[in-house]
Amino acid sequence: MLAQCRALAAKGQVHLAFPERLGGGDNPGANLAGFEELVAADPSLQIKAGVQWGLFASAILHLGDEEQQDRLLPAAMDLSVPGAFAMTETGHGSDVASVATTATYDPATEEFVLHTPFRAAWKDYLGNAAVHATAATVFAQLVTGGVNHGVHCFYVPIRTTGEDGRAGEFLPGIGGEDDGQKGGLNGVDNGRLHFDHVRVPRRDLLSRYGSVDADGTYSSPIDSPGRRFFTMLGSLVQGRVSLDGAASNAAKIGLQIAVTYGNQRRQFTGASATDEVVILDYGTHRRRLIPAIAEAYATHFAHDRLLDLFHTVFSGEEDTPETREDLETTAAALKASSTRFALDTLQETREACGGAGFLTENRITSLHADMDVYATFEGDNTVLLQLVGKRLLSDYAKELKGATPGGMARYVVDRAASAALHRTPLKRAAQAFADQGSARRAAGHLRETDTQRALLTDRVDTMVEELATALRPAQKAAPVEAARIFDAHQAELVEAAKAHADLLRWEAFTQALTQIEDSGTREVLTRVRDLFGLTLVERNLAWYLINGRLSGQRARTVTSYIERLLVRLRPHAQDLVDAWGFGPEHLRAKIASGAEAERQDEARAYYRELRASGDAPVSEKSQKKAQAKVGASRR
Amino acid sequence: MLAQCRALAAKGQVHLAFPERLGGGDNPGANLAGFEELVAADPSLQIKAGVQWGLFASAILHLGDEEQQDRLLPAAMDLSVPGAFAMTETGHGSDVASVATTATYDPATEEFVLHTPFRAAWKDYLGNAAVHATAATVFAQLVTGGVNHGVHCFYVPIRTTGEDGRAGEFLPGIGGEDDGQKGGLNGVDNGRLHFDHVRVPRRDLLSRYGSVDADGTYSSPIDSPGRRFFTMLGSLVQGRVSLDGAASNAAKIGLQIAVTYGNQRRQFTGASATDEVVILDYGTHRRRLIPAIAEAYATHFAHDRLLDLFHTVFSGEEDTPETREDLETTAAALKASSTRFALDTLQETREACGGAGFLTENRITSLHADMDVYATFEGDNTVLLQLVGKRLLSDYAKELKGATPGGMARYVVDRAASAALHRTPLKRAAQAFADQGSARRAAGHLRETDTQRALLTDRVDTMVEELATALRPAQKAAPVEAARIFDAHQAELVEAAKAHADLLRWEAFTQALTQIEDSGTREVLTRVRDLFGLTLVERNLAWYLINGRLSGQRARTVTSYIERLLVRLRPHAQDLVDAWGFGPEHLRAKIASGAEAERQDEARAYYRELRASGDAPVSEKSQKKAQAKVGASRR
Repeated sequence: MLAQCRALAAKGQVHLAFPERLGGGDNPGANLAGFEELVAADPSLQIKAGVQWGLFASAILHLGDEEQQDRLLPAAMDLSVPGAFAMTETGHGSDVASVATTATYDPATEEFVLHTPFRAAWKDYLGNAAVHATAATVFAQLVTGGVNHGVHCFYVPIRTTGEDGRAGEFLPGIGGEDDGQKGGLNGVDNGRLHFDHVRVPRRDLLSRYGSVDADGTYSSPIDSPGRRFFTMLGSLVQGRVSLDGAASNAAKIGLQIAVTYGNQRRQFTGASATDEVVILDYGTHRRRLIPAIAEAYATHFAHDRLLDLFHTVFSGEEDTPETREDLETTAAALKASSTRFALDTLQETREACGGAGFLTENRITSLHADMDVYATFEGDNTVLLQLVGKRLLSDYAKELKGATPGGMARYVVDRAASAALHRTPLKRAAQAFADQGSARRAAGHLRETDTQRALLTDRVDTMVEELATALRPAQKAAPVEAARIFDAHQAELVEAAKAHADLLRWEAFTQALTQIEDSGTREVLTRVRDLFGLTLVERNLAWYLINGRLSGQRARTVTSYIERLLVRLRPHAQDLVDAWGFGPEHLRAKIASGAEAERQDEARAYYRELRASGDAPVSEKSQKKAQAKVGASRR
Repeated sequence: MLAQCRALAAKGQVHLAFPERLGGGDNPGANLAGFEELVAADPSLQIKAGVQWGLFASAILHLGDEEQQDRLLPAAMDLSVPGAFAMTETGHGSDVASVATTATYDPATEEFVLHTPFRAAWKDYLGNAAVHATAATVFAQLVTGGVNHGVHCFYVPIRTTGEDGRAGEFLPGIGGEDDGQKGGLNGVDNGRLHFDHVRVPRRDLLSRYGSVDADGTYSSPIDSPGRRFFTMLGSLVQGRVSLDGAASNAAKIGLQIAVTYGNQRRQFTGASATDEVVILDYGTHRRRLIPAIAEAYATHFAHDRLLDLFHTVFSGEEDTPETREDLETTAAALKASSTRFALDTLQETREACGGAGFLTENRITSLHADMDVYATFEGDNTVLLQLVGKRLLSDYAKELKGATPGGMARYVVDRAASAALHRTPLKRAAQAFADQGSARRAAGHLRETDTQRALLTDRVDTMVEELATALRPAQKAAPVEAARIFDAHQAELVEAAKAHADLLRWEAFTQALTQIEDSGTREVLTRVRDLFGLTLVERNLAWYLINGRLSGQRARTVTSYIERLLVRLRPHAQDLVDAWGFGPEHLRAKIASGAEAERQDEARAYYRELRASGDAPVSEKSQKKAQAKVGASRR
């Protein structure tokens, strides 16, 4: 895996995000766009490369000053120093602000003393740390003059480098161990590190957002410790953006394999006495795979938008606190939804391929195993969704105060306009009335872009509004009671965030439709978008019913319209997955290679010839019928 | 793995199901009850043992006559002949009736000629076949005198046996290959077999349900080829019964690990400034794990009932076509629901344990990988649910004709009585009226056993009735149109079968409550049952709303009542999972060993001492506040 990383370094693709003066491309968007495709080669390669260039070198780039970049980046970029990104501790996963490792400044020697106070403070799960890393960017509480200035990042050599360039022994004061085997991603050497009063030169505190003078005086361009912390962690967002893209790709690969197989595999005879049915022609199989194709398209288009936004911010084109916040919230929402989607889809496609899906040669189980951890690393999905939910609440509060709605609203252009539509019970009654006896009309209505937008937008708005109301008493309550109130609504907060992510994906899909020039393509993809929109409505049908947004009768038409869409999209299923552009070299799955079609054709040809030869044995059943006839005619 | 199987053979536990005259115990129920616990040791061991004694030796037991049992069983039982069960073909998974391997009788030599006509007819995925098997029970179309009598089973030596007892080379005419690496269960040597005109002595056709005289005359105690086929396949049901138990155990193990960890792992401070919160105290975490505990209990009790039924039939206590059919349908319904539940739960528990859940040392990912294939082997879940759905339809048809309802109904005693309750829209209006302003009363109502039963039963009945009506036109339609109609309702058929399985599990749980003597235990478990019942209602809330079974207001109370139950059950979570009786030797997960609590205690003690010492650094934030105060007082 390290050798493959060296090949990537030699090609320079992984240097695109770095400064031109150091041989990079100053092009963060292009870098991520390439990086997230690595998942098709091997998720372990992607993560191993992500650790080196997306985390370790990136920390030097984003948290170091120019002198530190010039001094430390070249070796990180060309992989002569493989590095670990030592943030997470055994005792603290998503709660980075609470890491327990300390870096206490000693003015006598102008060094920081890096120390691990107890077992739970071991740095844990660090890629490269078990074997290859010779240095690490270590996050620790910076203490100087008796004051804790919060989490900062330090550049720390951790192992000797042999003449062959390989990592040698741990340096004095540093220890660690291998994390051992994992459920997947075993091409990455995750490990643990701990520090026993390790001395770090003053200038190896990465100093862009905080530095310490020789005498121990702390200074920072950002006055608020809270804002400083979030700014330093801000560069981590690129990990989430790229995981969103990688998850989208993994789901697509699973779907392309399963749809290809589903179009070739035959099982059970249907209407015909001799021909077995291609399994994608079964109603249950369509239901398993085609809505997932629609969701993969939505995930794809939403990721495209996210990547644009990322590039806008990280290239400096429009790097403001608002766009940063917007990027972080959107990345959190989409990473959480796409990694969930990828896992669910890989599981479904594995099962849809039956036992063949379970063979490693058919790739899906390995992808599932590797992607499994994407749901909890680079921010646990549940924690991320809570962040998104909180942002939705604060946007709502700002709107109430008459402030301009946050940048988020750019995704949801006519949110305010559509939202008013479904507020009154009157509307509900009117709809129930209008629907009577006209399921077709109701379905027609559901096909309209505005109806779908109104349904999806309204749900987010209403959930946020209800949450804000429910949480209001917490503002004036004692801490224990406030925590209880918040906890009681945590599940709803997460639901609102999911609904928001759904809306983002639907809007991105809808906007993408306007870019399609070929009318046939646009027509099919509009149906695919409708399928996605209605699948979202169907998933939350109870909400729409309880809140009077859909009458019982219209709710029924949601499912029946989905069924009709599935039948209409069925003939396009193969084209829809092939359009993603993964070739056999990316899929690398035997069952998607045409082998199944060959086997089926051979079997069918055998039976055809046997029937034609007249040598085919008759079945006992038809023999008995014939005997019965003969018996009857003799009587 | 073979050595471990030899240890099992030496202990005799795996012989319980076999005849006493051959050293067995004639006790099929006890045998399965023990067998399904093997999953805690290692799912590969379970499946490897299942292949040898549950499939290979079982085929000889159930399909052979007494002479064949006496001749062939001892070596299968003591593992001196490791065997494969060669039924599945590459081209035919769940559709066993269509296997393409032929066994054509040759009266000249009194032998069958076993032949694989094309690649898709290779026997595939056979445990023991890749390495260890020296014989196989092979399923093939029996042809004699130009008539195909359908699938029968043949005993066929496939490899030489060395002096050390190990499998040697393939015998002449037999070939095969290893299936290669799989997504899990890699302790089982799955492989493929094919036959090139292999000669099998006439008396090695396992002859209980069909035999051929020397001159080629076929005879069978079962006249109908269809019924004969299903009777022969009937013994396979024990695989499904045991997988139901194994899946239930795997889910429990995952839950016990995750709940133990969730009770020790702390993350983020809540109301307290210093103490981090145990993660199971978070609302989202309760939601992830506690409903799954309830479902595990339901799955457990339902499996107990199934095991009873299995023993009743297989011990011969009550072996009738009706009880057999009942057993097969119930096993299909429960196997499909419990394997799905196990996979979902293992995924959820893995994520609930964060990165720690992804480490192999914590067991969950391996269990998930191994259990993955349980969803599609021994009958693909989707296919099984269709069988269940068809049975529900035929029971419904029988009831309409005034016949006694099938044995199934014994599980659903007062189905007819409760079903009438919620049929009319009038009822709906009355309920909406009664509910006004009284959410508490509505919740009280939902807690009642009869209400839950009525809601769950009514859903099954109504779905089946609607399906029967929708499918009626297919009876008179041309084959193509009939197939289209059936296909259009396939998804609903599967849904109805799932609803039926849910009801079975709920009824089993409810019945189990009556057996609990300790009133405290009964009270807690009744709440657990309520949680399970209401979780089922919540999952299908849209259905209840659309069909007027719940008003919008009462539907809201379903979720809020679940939330209240979760809070009340939270303190019992650990007891509930510990009650399943898995000790550290079964869990074998580091994070469930107390290591996490130790780490957390050490960290908290460290900070406590630091605070007490007065040496703790102050935070920048409080320093700034203090400076601001000093500055203000100086003014």
